[in-house]
Amino acid sequence: MPAQVLVAGGWREARLPAGSFRPVDPASGEPLPEEFPISSWPDVEEALQAGAEAADGLLGAGPDRIAGYLEALAAGLEGRAEALIERAGRETGLPAEPRLRSSELPRTTGQLRQAAAACRDRSWVRATIDTKADLRSKLGPLGGPVAVFGPNNFPFAFNAVGGGDFAAAVAAGNPVIAKANPQYPGTTRLLAEAAFDALAGSGLPAAAVQVLYHVSPEDGRKLVSHPRLGATAFTGSRQAGLGLKEAADRAGKLIYLEMSSLNPVFVLPGALRERGPEAASELFASCATGAGQFCTKPGLIVLVEGPGSEAFLTALRAAFEAAPAAVVLGAGVLKGLEAGAARLRGLGAERAAGGGAAAGPGFRFRPALWRVPASRFLADPAAFQIETFGALSLLVTARDPAEARSIADSLEGQLTAAIYSAVDGSDDAAYAVLEPPLRRQAGRLLNDRAPTGVAVSPAMNHGGPFPASGHPGFTSVGIPAAMTRFAALQAYDHVRPDRLPPELRNGNPTGAMWRLVDGEWTRRSI
Amino acid sequence: MPAQVLVAGGWREARLPAGSFRPVDPASGEPLPEEFPISSWPDVEEALQAGAEAADGLLGAGPDRIAGYLEALAAGLEGRAEALIERAGRETGLPAEPRLRSSELPRTTGQLRQAAAACRDRSWVRATIDTKADLRSKLGPLGGPVAVFGPNNFPFAFNAVGGGDFAAAVAAGNPVIAKANPQYPGTTRLLAEAAFDALAGSGLPAAAVQVLYHVSPEDGRKLVSHPRLGATAFTGSRQAGLGLKEAADRAGKLIYLEMSSLNPVFVLPGALRERGPEAASELFASCATGAGQFCTKPGLIVLVEGPGSEAFLTALRAAFEAAPAAVVLGAGVLKGLEAGAARLRGLGAERAAGGGAAAGPGFRFRPALWRVPASRFLADPAAFQIETFGALSLLVTARDPAEARSIADSLEGQLTAAIYSAVDGSDDAAYAVLEPPLRRQAGRLLNDRAPTGVAVSPAMNHGGPFPASGHPGFTSVGIPAAMTRFAALQAYDHVRPDRLPPELRNGNPTGAMWRLVDGEWTRRSI
Repeated sequence: MPAQVLVAGGWREARLPAGSFRPVDPASGEPLPEEFPISSWPDVEEALQAGAEAADGLLGAGPDRIAGYLEALAAGLEGRAEALIERAGRETGLPAEPRLRSSELPRTTGQLRQAAAACRDRSWVRATIDTKADLRSKLGPLGGPVAVFGPNNFPFAFNAVGGGDFAAAVAAGNPVIAKANPQYPGTTRLLAEAAFDALAGSGLPAAAVQVLYHVSPEDGRKLVSHPRLGATAFTGSRQAGLGLKEAADRAGKLIYLEMSSLNPVFVLPGALRERGPEAASELFASCATGAGQFCTKPGLIVLVEGPGSEAFLTALRAAFEAAPAAVVLGAGVLKGLEAGAARLRGLGAERAAGGGAAAGPGFRFRPALWRVPASRFLADPAAFQIETFGALSLLVTARDPAEARSIADSLEGQLTAAIYSAVDGSDDAAYAVLEPPLRRQAGRLLNDRAPTGVAVSPAMNHGGPFPASGHPGFTSVGIPAAMTRFAALQAYDHVRPDRLPPELRNGNPTGAMWRLVDGEWTRRSI
Repeated sequence: MPAQVLVAGGWREARLPAGSFRPVDPASGEPLPEEFPISSWPDVEEALQAGAEAADGLLGAGPDRIAGYLEALAAGLEGRAEALIERAGRETGLPAEPRLRSSELPRTTGQLRQAAAACRDRSWVRATIDTKADLRSKLGPLGGPVAVFGPNNFPFAFNAVGGGDFAAAVAAGNPVIAKANPQYPGTTRLLAEAAFDALAGSGLPAAAVQVLYHVSPEDGRKLVSHPRLGATAFTGSRQAGLGLKEAADRAGKLIYLEMSSLNPVFVLPGALRERGPEAASELFASCATGAGQFCTKPGLIVLVEGPGSEAFLTALRAAFEAAPAAVVLGAGVLKGLEAGAARLRGLGAERAAGGGAAAGPGFRFRPALWRVPASRFLADPAAFQIETFGALSLLVTARDPAEARSIADSLEGQLTAAIYSAVDGSDDAAYAVLEPPLRRQAGRLLNDRAPTGVAVSPAMNHGGPFPASGHPGFTSVGIPAAMTRFAALQAYDHVRPDRLPPELRNGNPTGAMWRLVDGEWTRRSI
């Protein structure tokens, strides 16, 4: 029997499933024993109905209970840590140490606790009070469930259950309908069990969290465009994201997407001279960590040539050459890497180091560095900008900052852009040339560091202009900013005091919540 | 010769215009003498190119110069007040007093000055600093021009030049490409002259404001989906808005829309008993002011029957019956009102008072009240919810709060929803039944007042769930919230202090700007 789905407040078998599937262990290439259902429309529809009712229930429960729930879930994940790490490792090939145990799981529970704290604090609602006009407004929940589509590369931190979008949506007061990533359904089931168990006694509606393992693309489009839905959060491939976006847009439904980014890194001549080999080592690590399967992996390195170029290149090539093959998430990733390499070759780039599928059981790939001169890149920048997911990066050599600027001008929207520059000031003029287009096109601009670390900080932006995301004003990482995606602005015009939500009454409901009262941020009561 | 367009920093004739048009005086029905060009793609393309360059120029100019510009424009409009009022009156039929001179023009200059103050204050950018992670973020301009499409009903306050969206976009640091509403091109030209004159000596790029009088729907779609564009702000009809939205969405470009709303008003039995005739008088004024040509006109009044129903109805009918015909904006509005009446008749509603095109020169209509029982409304709520622009409202009589709740549950997204309830507490139970769906579906919830006044307040929400707007998290009225629509979130990760924008350096650039530093809102420097 395939696993049970979590719908309408309980575990049950999928109704009229469209089929079933098994996850594959990417280290062996063999399917894992358990079967998971592909839900068809009846499951989705029931989840939408129950989710809409749960939205009212969450409103009644209030922020303190929601915060308590998120904290209970974090503790529940810690209690299940070993099972989660074991299962996620089998379904993704990611190492237990340091990745799953010491990095991703603490990050995930940390996100849940940060979201809980923000929920309890309430400042994120941006309560705004105009006492003269007796007009008051705040952000409030969307009134319908949020559909979360998780990506394949973070089985905990971006899981549709318990990951960043989940935490943000729930902390903002919305139920979640999680569409698990089919890469790791068993991991998602463990998370879903923790999420469901934590609901008991929380005071939250039992349908605040619902989980489906898989749906057809057609049912996915119906889900994201359904009138009862509040919003969708999607992290994944550009192709899948654009398909959902088209359906949601047509119906006027909110959808947030995190899709595609090259994360260009520009290395200036002074930096090459001062610390070329160290920069090469940092960049290699950023390209190859996690088998390169990060949204912020540098897929494009632009080298502005100078006296230090050769030492940098030698060090970078050596690092790629020495890198062992790493297990990738699956056959699809491998195929994408091979297609990316073929595309680069067809465009006139050449392989500079490493690369290629490796022998052995399962799906393995050696980190690959490709190379092309700027003149050729600029002949067809759109073709060179197609993201390849995994440890494949393109190095472009530019003669001077002006040529590098032409590359920067040609870029689509990016999650990140980085500039390595000299400490001695010799790169300042080149920096000034490159910064404007990179600032415009990237959500996060870095100096002298590689982009793969995405701190969960209030000042983080994990987003950027299209196609990096679907809206440049929002981030999917960083509390409380990520929560504001799942909220509606709600004004109260001469609404009687006893009918106002607590956050907008004269008294500050917590004593600590920040509110904008007559133009001043304050924690005082009125 | 048709009038000149304002493109790329100067007035010039339209290149290869697709034709020309004359505005019509709605009070006489006669065309006004002056001709205006319908621009074709070469004008739009040149404006996009110049606007993209002006975006860089505005970034260099900085907030103080931008604020000074907006203030100079406000003063310039006051200097041209009589010409503006005269011309707007001829092109719209709206009365000089109190509407144009005492209400709309001061509102428009007030918006510009509020936007200037917010721009100078800089708190709106939500500067967020995480000192431990050395991660800093703020909202910044979009890096391309904002296309503003103004509606036909507010020749000053929502004009694509000098109106609310214009003020918000410029204050957020973006150039504007204004697509004038063809209802009042002469008014727009006066505003454009003021806007262009104010640029001289402002330190802002000459292409910070560009103005086209008309473009084909096809070129409009090309404009809103163009890679150089930053965003679009549209206020107008649902049909035109959805056409632009489809094009912008497909290209991944931001578009904000303010389109369609019935602005339902629910009147509860206790309120009817306490002050039925006064409520009727307020509601009539809200329905008929400005010939009913407001986005927030109550198009739907739901009466929960009780002992006061008859007195309320009698007073409301009498007010509609006594109302004189008013000049409407044009033949299209008249046709829409007639089609709306025919649609209501076809659905089984009946005319309760007033209504119908009136004799006399030009385009005139008598405010109309239609009536239908709730049971019939609920038989086809979608058909009854098509907005009719102008002074036509539908009164629905509900037997009890439960039936009224069914109507509330059936509503699409709204700009506003209002509940009239008794002071003595007798309506509190009914209020609790109605509030949840109305709160969910409306951007602004009112108690005991009609929705047509839209104060320019930081706590205002002139927006709401689709189709009232395109994104429920944003408002098109209210400074500084309206500015955040035209901004991208931009993070700086370990960027050297001298390369940071002033708002994110350790020192507070104005001493007064609010910033979120390590979780605390503060005006202090670090």
